[in-house]
Amino acid sequence: MEILETLNLGPDRVDIRRATAGDIPAIVDLLAADQLGVIRDGIASARDLTAYRAAFEAIDRDPAHLLIVAQAGPDIVATMQLSFLPGLARRGALRAQIEAVRVAAPYRNRGLGAALMTWAIGESRRRDCALVQLTTDKSRTSAHRFYERLGFAASHEGMKLRL
Amino acid sequence: MEILETLNLGPDRVDIRRATAGDIPAIVDLLAADQLGVIRDGIASARDLTAYRAAFEAIDRDPAHLLIVAQAGPDIVATMQLSFLPGLARRGALRAQIEAVRVAAPYRNRGLGAALMTWAIGESRRRDCALVQLTTDKSRTSAHRFYERLGFAASHEGMKLRL
Repeated sequence: MEILETLNLGPDRVDIRRATAGDIPAIVDLLAADQLGVIRDGIASARDLTAYRAAFEAIDRDPAHLLIVAQAGPDIVATMQLSFLPGLARRGALRAQIEAVRVAAPYRNRGLGAALMTWAIGESRRRDCALVQLTTDKSRTSAHRFYERLGFAASHEGMKLRL
Repeated sequence: MEILETLNLGPDRVDIRRATAGDIPAIVDLLAADQLGVIRDGIASARDLTAYRAAFEAIDRDPAHLLIVAQAGPDIVATMQLSFLPGLARRGALRAQIEAVRVAAPYRNRGLGAALMTWAIGESRRRDCALVQLTTDKSRTSAHRFYERLGFAASHEGMKLRL
């Protein structure tokens, strides 16, 4: 399993690596533990992972997508998805899109989220992207400040339509 | 060339179809004619299309992306890109993302933009997407009202980092 980067967070060593199918339950736990995700991704014990496994396969077989986890000892403590999208706008620029960033509560405010984002921005540069983009719920005001500290500008409205 | 939908806009018949390589100059003209795009995509006469052709190839060979044009007689009068993105969040839902929507000035406020978006939302339902998403520059206030009339909610901050 290829380690993309190793971080030292105080006494903890955290490895950033590409997710494997074995990580699916831990990733879903991180999604469901989130205040907004608990509504959308339910409670772990009542969960059927079939749909999540199908989504993992779709992500894993397409080199345009990278599903990332951060591991501390045996524990998956953070996740994020990075997608590289071609487009004609901005002179045919590839754009990187970040989705589903989650950090386990005991690992927040310790630099892990910033380290994950910094790795994602670096990977986007290595792939010659012109832009990194993400949307964040308007209720997550501390996330907005976090992304602005990393250099993001809240220049756009993020519009969603549920089907 | 498969016509996806034909619209009657007053006296004009407009066909919605998948873009071909021959449409690239017209699409770039639509991107560059836009108030914000003129900065990013330059002036048509001074333009090298090499990067745009490479981006078109990347979009065209991947079934996750649909580059759409609307044609009236010989003229390309609108364009939009639709991408279908797998993800673990929201129970492994596929999400549709709309980028680079442009309508030629003479065809604005005649229902073409709404027809394009309605087609995109319908296609997203046919592909079992749980969500359609897009970002729109905060300065484009009439676009915000347009998307809200179509059922979109401006629930998120759209954050961008230029590399």
